[in-house]
Amino acid sequence: MPELRKDPIVGRWVIIATERAKRPVEYARDASQPRPGAFCPFCPGNEDKTPHEVLVYRPSPTARDWALRVVPNKFPVLKIEGDLDRRGEGLYDGMNGVGAHEVIIETPAHDRQFADLDDGAIEMVLSAWRDRIVDLRRDTRFRYVMVFKNHGAAAGATLEHTHSQLIALPIVPIAVAAEMTGAQRYWEFKERCVFCDIVRQELDDGRRVIFENGGFVVAAPYAPKFPFETWILPKTHRAAYEEAHQRELGQLAGALRTALRKLSVALDRPPYNFILHTAPFGQGDSLHYHWHIEIMPTLTKVAGFEWGSGFYINPTPPEDAAKFLRDLSI
Amino acid sequence: MPELRKDPIVGRWVIIATERAKRPVEYARDASQPRPGAFCPFCPGNEDKTPHEVLVYRPSPTARDWALRVVPNKFPVLKIEGDLDRRGEGLYDGMNGVGAHEVIIETPAHDRQFADLDDGAIEMVLSAWRDRIVDLRRDTRFRYVMVFKNHGAAAGATLEHTHSQLIALPIVPIAVAAEMTGAQRYWEFKERCVFCDIVRQELDDGRRVIFENGGFVVAAPYAPKFPFETWILPKTHRAAYEEAHQRELGQLAGALRTALRKLSVALDRPPYNFILHTAPFGQGDSLHYHWHIEIMPTLTKVAGFEWGSGFYINPTPPEDAAKFLRDLSI
Repeated sequence: MPELRKDPIVGRWVIIATERAKRPVEYARDASQPRPGAFCPFCPGNEDKTPHEVLVYRPSPTARDWALRVVPNKFPVLKIEGDLDRRGEGLYDGMNGVGAHEVIIETPAHDRQFADLDDGAIEMVLSAWRDRIVDLRRDTRFRYVMVFKNHGAAAGATLEHTHSQLIALPIVPIAVAAEMTGAQRYWEFKERCVFCDIVRQELDDGRRVIFENGGFVVAAPYAPKFPFETWILPKTHRAAYEEAHQRELGQLAGALRTALRKLSVALDRPPYNFILHTAPFGQGDSLHYHWHIEIMPTLTKVAGFEWGSGFYINPTPPEDAAKFLRDLSI
Repeated sequence: MPELRKDPIVGRWVIIATERAKRPVEYARDASQPRPGAFCPFCPGNEDKTPHEVLVYRPSPTARDWALRVVPNKFPVLKIEGDLDRRGEGLYDGMNGVGAHEVIIETPAHDRQFADLDDGAIEMVLSAWRDRIVDLRRDTRFRYVMVFKNHGAAAGATLEHTHSQLIALPIVPIAVAAEMTGAQRYWEFKERCVFCDIVRQELDDGRRVIFENGGFVVAAPYAPKFPFETWILPKTHRAAYEEAHQRELGQLAGALRTALRKLSVALDRPPYNFILHTAPFGQGDSLHYHWHIEIMPTLTKVAGFEWGSGFYINPTPPEDAAKFLRDLSI
């Protein structure tokens, strides 16, 4: 059973995922690179090589083939069965590693990258995230669902076939809690949502805006941790992603595809991560939090200084990155 | 002039280091790998290829050669001249990128790794950190000095010749502030230092202890972010590193060398980062904070989940890592 353990100083939880344990020598040779041409468990015909799907979308109601599948991760970092069993050990705090770890297989086509899907296919992925969050938030053990994508080996992807992942957690992750607290502090001071203020100021200013449609702004943040970091912010205030209307998901598909294609052209198909930032369960109607997506191309190495300080050194001013991406035709 | 910018939600500062700016296409081909056999600006005879030293230790008072040099970084992320000039820009906050960025050239010997130095040479490095912190804290613009080491290309080192770095900052980094706050909260609840309690519990328990001498405990933390993460904790409570006595630095040299040699043997000379965690200036006599060193071998990739959540997945239980390292003879 994996274990959740809390750092006694800063309160950060970690997952000790013993079932993925390696011997020391195994770390020396990293076998996690995707191998082109290798057997792919996500391709049509290999459905029996993954656990049974928890959600499937088909091209038509009577079709036997699928357009998108969501399956439990075969090597989950948390286990869906069991009680939390919170416990102390001297000054330390732990609990069982209970949670859900699912994979969204975004298309049957092995050779399509996410950024190359059409808006309809991307909207289907966005709907799948919503549908899974709505289902998982009924489980009272869970407090948060983290949705993310690792693209490319340097960004942590171990399979080539395009997919995103979600992890349902029995605690609110420390980075999400810090965002909620910061947004609440701003609200207490200003009585406005900080994200709504950011959207307004960025649209007025324009220097960091990359793309805009009816529902969304794609912009470089004022204080990016990484070069070409790109945020996608909904113009409508809503704390929880799963409350977004279908029409908004359609607009988000266009904004996300545009952002990723521009990054792909500008940076020669870089590895990247993106993360859905959304309110914890039970705070979906918060006035101070505002869901959004953050995209981080993997371009620089994170080293001692960043690890120690939480202080990032970024050699690319966001105004330069935004201008470059804004002017790029795709 | 580099610029410091603050994220308006979580309050994290970033350095926009424009003088290291790259064009987008330059990120595609990473030229930051150390090249064996290339010209080394840190070797004896090439002293004129670095800025003039701010500190030098010689084998004897009259010697012309050096045992250790500290020089300003030739490509600093922050600039030593100028005022902070704190300013707002709508809802955003920024200031000038004022700070010190120095390199500790730890030995004249190009081919020696840090872990292969003898205790005397390591103690000299530890003394140099102290002497530079004591000097820099006189500058009223600064609030913190971050001391760290990147070893190996995957851990962010761009030069092979062994060196550590320090960055003096006009703000307290967010990760340090979080540690201070967490330690203070523990103090308010218990009226004891959380680090003193950790030292006591780890020595009683023994399962996570790797090595111990008169002054220091080397242990795997209860909730490590990374496999084989290793902490070095002084047994004597002291908030600020620079207050440590010379005798303690001698004991620390033995503990640090032992920890790094064990990791080097166990993991086949892995890349690693280590970071000195010490109290911000003006809080050196804090009863709740306790300086220490954290060593993180670079074994796993940090991907979307970790970035988004601050939630780390670690496949190696610290009890297993500690047992392996404890039993290893070096």
